[in-house]
Amino acid sequence: MPKFMDVHHNMKGITREQLLQAHQDDLAIEGEEGVHFESAWADPDSGVVYCLSEAPSAEAVQRIHQRTGHKADEVHPVPLQV
Amino acid sequence: MPKFMDVHHNMKGITREQLLQAHQDDLAIEGEEGVHFESAWADPDSGVVYCLSEAPSAEAVQRIHQRTGHKADEVHPVPLQV
Repeated sequence: MPKFMDVHHNMKGITREQLLQAHQDDLAIEGEEGVHFESAWADPDSGVVYCLSEAPSAEAVQRIHQRTGHKADEVHPVPLQV
Repeated sequence: MPKFMDVHHNMKGITREQLLQAHQDDLAIEGEEGVHFESAWADPDSGVVYCLSEAPSAEAVQRIHQRTGHKADEVHPVPLQV
């Protein structure tokens, strides 16, 4: 299954609890699009959040994020990993 | 140890072999700065590369990348992870 890294900007001040809640919201419905969100990393100071997922398409990743209220600003396929 | 996500742009067309070589070059000297590069993900089409590391500082991450010839465009501490 292809992997994707999506990026959210403008998340300055995000807390551990907010990141966890957003991730749990995604996990709760991700199966409906065949997506799995593996990890997310956040920098509260610059307001950037990175999410790593496996999914059938970038559009499927975005549909889950949109439904849970946090549309990604970028969704990149990352076919290469080391 | 703090975690960091650094981002490289303008890497369009990067191959699996080039990503692996760059990662191995970093691993070869990372210990001199107390850094450990855990994973890297690349999108050859948009030319973006993400590197996840543990390090004492963003400057330490950047020093390793600079010495191996691929300075990062952004280095973000990512204190929050889920």
